[in-house]
Amino acid sequence: MIIVMKHGSTEQQIAEISRTLKSLGLGVHISEGTERTIIGVIGDKQLLRDIPLEIMPGVEKLVPIVESYKLAGRTFKPEKSLIDVNGVKIGGSEIVIMAGPCSVESREQIMEAAASVRKAGAKFLRGGAYKPRTSPYSFQGLEEDGLKLLKEASEATGLLIISEVTSEHTVDIVDRYVDMFQIGARNVQNFQLLKEIGRSRKPVLFKRGPSTTIDEWLNAAEYIMSGGNYNVVLCERGIRTFETSTRNTLDISAVPVIRNISHLPVFVDPSHSAGKAYLVPSLSMAAIAAGADGLIIEVHPDPIHAMSDAAQQITPDVFDSLCSDISRIAPILGRKFEGSVK
Amino acid sequence: MIIVMKHGSTEQQIAEISRTLKSLGLGVHISEGTERTIIGVIGDKQLLRDIPLEIMPGVEKLVPIVESYKLAGRTFKPEKSLIDVNGVKIGGSEIVIMAGPCSVESREQIMEAAASVRKAGAKFLRGGAYKPRTSPYSFQGLEEDGLKLLKEASEATGLLIISEVTSEHTVDIVDRYVDMFQIGARNVQNFQLLKEIGRSRKPVLFKRGPSTTIDEWLNAAEYIMSGGNYNVVLCERGIRTFETSTRNTLDISAVPVIRNISHLPVFVDPSHSAGKAYLVPSLSMAAIAAGADGLIIEVHPDPIHAMSDAAQQITPDVFDSLCSDISRIAPILGRKFEGSVK
Amino acid sequence: MIIVMKHGSTEQQIAEISRTLKSLGLGVHISEGTERTIIGVIGDKQLLRDIPLEIMPGVEKLVPIVESYKLAGRTFKPEKSLIDVNGVKIGGSEIVIMAGPCSVESREQIMEAAASVRKAGAKFLRGGAYKPRTSPYSFQGLEEDGLKLLKEASEATGLLIISEVTSEHTVDIVDRYVDMFQIGARNVQNFQLLKEIGRSRKPVLFKRGPSTTIDEWLNAAEYIMSGGNYNVVLCERGIRTFETSTRNTLDISAVPVIRNISHLPVFVDPSHSAGKAYLVPSLSMAAIAAGADGLIIEVHPDPIHAMSDAAQQITPDVFDSLCSDISRIAPILGRKFEGSVK
Amino acid sequence: MIIVMKHGSTEQQIAEISRTLKSLGLGVHISEGTERTIIGVIGDKQLLRDIPLEIMPGVEKLVPIVESYKLAGRTFKPEKSLIDVNGVKIGGSEIVIMAGPCSVESREQIMEAAASVRKAGAKFLRGGAYKPRTSPYSFQGLEEDGLKLLKEASEATGLLIISEVTSEHTVDIVDRYVDMFQIGARNVQNFQLLKEIGRSRKPVLFKRGPSTTIDEWLNAAEYIMSGGNYNVVLCERGIRTFETSTRNTLDISAVPVIRNISHLPVFVDPSHSAGKAYLVPSLSMAAIAAGADGLIIEVHPDPIHAMSDAAQQITPDVFDSLCSDISRIAPILGRKFEGSVK
Repeated sequence: MIIVMKHGSTEQQIAEISRTLKSLGLGVHISEGTERTIIGVIGDKQLLRDIPLEIMPGVEKLVPIVESYKLAGRTFKPEKSLIDVNGVKIGGSEIVIMAGPCSVESREQIMEAAASVRKAGAKFLRGGAYKPRTSPYSFQGLEEDGLKLLKEASEATGLLIISEVTSEHTVDIVDRYVDMFQIGARNVQNFQLLKEIGRSRKPVLFKRGPSTTIDEWLNAAEYIMSGGNYNVVLCERGIRTFETSTRNTLDISAVPVIRNISHLPVFVDPSHSAGKAYLVPSLSMAAIAAGADGLIIEVHPDPIHAMSDAAQQITPDVFDSLCSDISRIAPILGRKFEGSVK
Repeated sequence: MIIVMKHGSTEQQIAEISRTLKSLGLGVHISEGTERTIIGVIGDKQLLRDIPLEIMPGVEKLVPIVESYKLAGRTFKPEKSLIDVNGVKIGGSEIVIMAGPCSVESREQIMEAAASVRKAGAKFLRGGAYKPRTSPYSFQGLEEDGLKLLKEASEATGLLIISEVTSEHTVDIVDRYVDMFQIGARNVQNFQLLKEIGRSRKPVLFKRGPSTTIDEWLNAAEYIMSGGNYNVVLCERGIRTFETSTRNTLDISAVPVIRNISHLPVFVDPSHSAGKAYLVPSLSMAAIAAGADGLIIEVHPDPIHAMSDAAQQITPDVFDSLCSDISRIAPILGRKFEGSVK
Repeated sequence: MIIVMKHGSTEQQIAEISRTLKSLGLGVHISEGTERTIIGVIGDKQLLRDIPLEIMPGVEKLVPIVESYKLAGRTFKPEKSLIDVNGVKIGGSEIVIMAGPCSVESREQIMEAAASVRKAGAKFLRGGAYKPRTSPYSFQGLEEDGLKLLKEASEATGLLIISEVTSEHTVDIVDRYVDMFQIGARNVQNFQLLKEIGRSRKPVLFKRGPSTTIDEWLNAAEYIMSGGNYNVVLCERGIRTFETSTRNTLDISAVPVIRNISHLPVFVDPSHSAGKAYLVPSLSMAAIAAGADGLIIEVHPDPIHAMSDAAQQITPDVFDSLCSDISRIAPILGRKFEGSVK
Repeated sequence: MIIVMKHGSTEQQIAEISRTLKSLGLGVHISEGTERTIIGVIGDKQLLRDIPLEIMPGVEKLVPIVESYKLAGRTFKPEKSLIDVNGVKIGGSEIVIMAGPCSVESREQIMEAAASVRKAGAKFLRGGAYKPRTSPYSFQGLEEDGLKLLKEASEATGLLIISEVTSEHTVDIVDRYVDMFQIGARNVQNFQLLKEIGRSRKPVLFKRGPSTTIDEWLNAAEYIMSGGNYNVVLCERGIRTFETSTRNTLDISAVPVIRNISHLPVFVDPSHSAGKAYLVPSLSMAAIAAGADGLIIEVHPDPIHAMSDAAQQITPDVFDSLCSDISRIAPILGRKFEGSVK
């Protein structure tokens, strides 16, 4: 932490700050510039957490030197994390794809979706059972019945299951059915839910919020990790900007940025980013080319009759063709992906 | 709802859509333009909620004609709502001010804060007992002990209590102590929490999220109102933009926009918008001048020793002077505010 | 400037940077923390301008300590600037209002507009002669004929003239007619135009760009001021955000922020911020309450027949009533405004 | 164009609007819904351009049905445009890469840069001679001397030249040296400059502005095209958002969106998007995977001694390796790119 003093701050003010820091056991390094004096603070920044340095007399601003998260950062753990989800490894050389409908709607729908995405190369079946919707009048999901149908489809195909948990109340019930939790964008700073997931050891796909900076997102991941659950996979899904031709703006740069500062694997959700099915293949290819460890994609056997987010779900045919393209570019990027098991 | 067909869509495609709409009992109005055909849909839009018109063959886009929320809108209820919180009326001619520290920290602190804000003219005492913090390593609040201290301060001063509820789990406990719930920006789309609050009849101050459009915010309010709790007061608290000189960008225009489209009262939180104490008086005055029904302001008897958000809390002296200014401009704006009860 | 070294940077890397800085005549202050070494650079930062410190081996990031603009800042000139425009003083205790139609359309229109805004209390007549429009097919202004009509209206009423200059080519011609230049949001970083205006000594109202940070805006003002033209009045006119219920989001906080860091007067343009006439009075009052030195408002005698931006122009009646309100709140804010000269 | 009337608008208001539209020769189609009446306007929307329908009594809002640009759209020209720049075709199956330093600094630097980027597979040499810089105190470019050096490097290597034109004044001089104009982000709505370029027939790489929507960008392209210059190549270079870990947020979705709505070729500039050299290869690969027709990349033989934007320029080695990767993924995407000519 560096403290920048105001132009014209007094020696007494500097001495007072210095005294406060030393009384906390911190080292102090004073440097007088031509226009400003700066004070370097040396030692454990946790000691400073609740000292309001920024409003002490003479202080202009504080400049943090190290990032505010710890467990999620490369400084803490330099080598990349490999998350094992019941045998499927995320974060290694293999590209992992999760696919399935936005919402679980019926046995027929989910069985058909599962069979087709497995054939194309997906390792996980996704499907919403508890749906957070912008309007209370929209379809809210089949709830536990949806989870049961996912389980059935999983047993029939061997796919692992990922499904969203939207509330502390339903953590236990979702836990009974899924191989991996999903936390959606709207709950990225629902800290009570994050703490609850932190008490589990089950892997979690943790989506970025639409207005969350990468720094805040890693701090939110820290809520899960500081509870002891290190099995976190980050998932970029678009941020809110002024552009309206897409539902959100996919922040593709987040992929290499996170690979640089964090050891956690990073996924991309092209479906929620785009909000339009025609964009999904291009954005999926871009995500893999940018270095994503995997994708979570909405695929519906019959989008025209989908009960939610119809516009962004692709058909099994489009998904199959996309998986085939991914299997061909993967080796060029030093990755593996076994597409279509025809 | 209007359906805009693609340039070159076929008569058959138009007929198919028309047939689908009529089968749902909706009226259809076809209009052929020089470049596009458009189809007007007449009737209850709820019937369309789960029909994916936007991906039917030949469709270019859908254009909603009426707003997606209902209970929160002026169309539903043209006259402005007046919310009665144990005798204090919000949304009428009187400007209502809520003030107090970011977090409840100790008996001494909250008693001193309460006495000073009451003297200046506040009607509510605010104070966080459950604190959602960006980092898990920051102070998380005194929890129920904090609520008890608020109650004590309320009994000593006659101030009403408002405090944030951050989780479904704590709705009951917070309910026992407060006169009004507060839902914070991070929970604006925590729909499970909103539904829980919707089952209560206790008034709620409902903050906008940092990346929530006004339309989405009113839809979120609909989650509370559709449960039967109509006692909602909206609170603008800044949105996330590219500008970094303030913590958030106060969207002052939201005040007159909401007064135009909604009957709900609207407050402003200048403290979280600005993130810096020196900006609070200017933004408070601006909010009142723009037509806000009230303010919620962070006031701390000793900001330099505050345990959270020290930089944005103003002192009792500054608050007192601000209340005095508000009492002087209120009549010019056709409002009332009794400042300082010296 | 502070240089933060990477975790694990070597002594040799630190020595190399130190050597480079010293060779430029700069002072060096090395501080070893528990996790990072930081290097404080002491002396004239201009010497560093073209040294790419950020990519030297071992460097993690650079942290600027002082702001990048100079002439526009309070450090350079602590007391507030008072700009004299042919007798009207901007930035003092008097609130100055500029008003008139978006575009000059005809003699009748501009004469009527001028008479009505003068009566209500405006000191400047505004009116576009050269119009930058989003589409090339929209009305582009009357050009020099428009300027002549402004001059005629000015002579008839005694109002000063402000009009936008959109191109280096037309600086000379606009200069012949106006008392004050206006530079619009789209040209905030048209540096060639700014340098041209910098060579003049005529005052300029310099609008913020829709995606310009306050820091970049002050740097852009520096292009004008470093040419010797210190007569700059800043004008906030809304920034681009995700919210679509207004044309732009008025960043009301920019007013007190600029008053804190710059000595230049600051205006607000509520018309372009809002894009809707019904919002203009509320936003105008908010701007004055926040501390703006003045307003520039679009007023049209007959908005329904306006040739550009009809939706955001208010009528003379609304303007008159607004000026009356401003004259009543001005004294409470320690300002003066003589409204309606009935 | 559709006109949505207010809830409660009168028959008289509807008749008045209808009368106005018919008097302009437009067709009118009235549709009464359950909550609102809507009026469809049929005919040439140019006729409506200067009629302020949105403020006529009873009108709630206007809904445009067709896009506001014309020449840039797929409706006007369904097949993709192929732009021939002195023999190099942009927009076809071949991926075209433009590379070179941010600024032309010296003969040695530009000759070395040209040789290395040509060897790796670039077809164009880029290099700034006129530099728009945020601060007036930064290096502003070598101006005509820089153009002469570019010409010399072009003659030595056979590379085509692209360089930025920042002002109407310098269009003629830049024209004498370059094969293709570049218009930078800050000038995206410098309409006078766009009109000037529209009078030329020389191809232009037209960058998106940091806060320009895709719709506004295509409208700005219309300023060039309506002058008769159809040789426009669009270039996405990042938009301004709240995220600060990159200089701008690369809007990768803009690539497939533009391919869908416009016939113009689309490039990506990964260097200005990222602002950091380490991100350039990942973003370049992502851009090609998303369907970009080419890239413009900053390459400097010795970034550590660059005179501008050092942090975002990659070395010839990194560029060579990137070109090699692009040559390997191109065929999978149905494109061609001849990399390294070793």
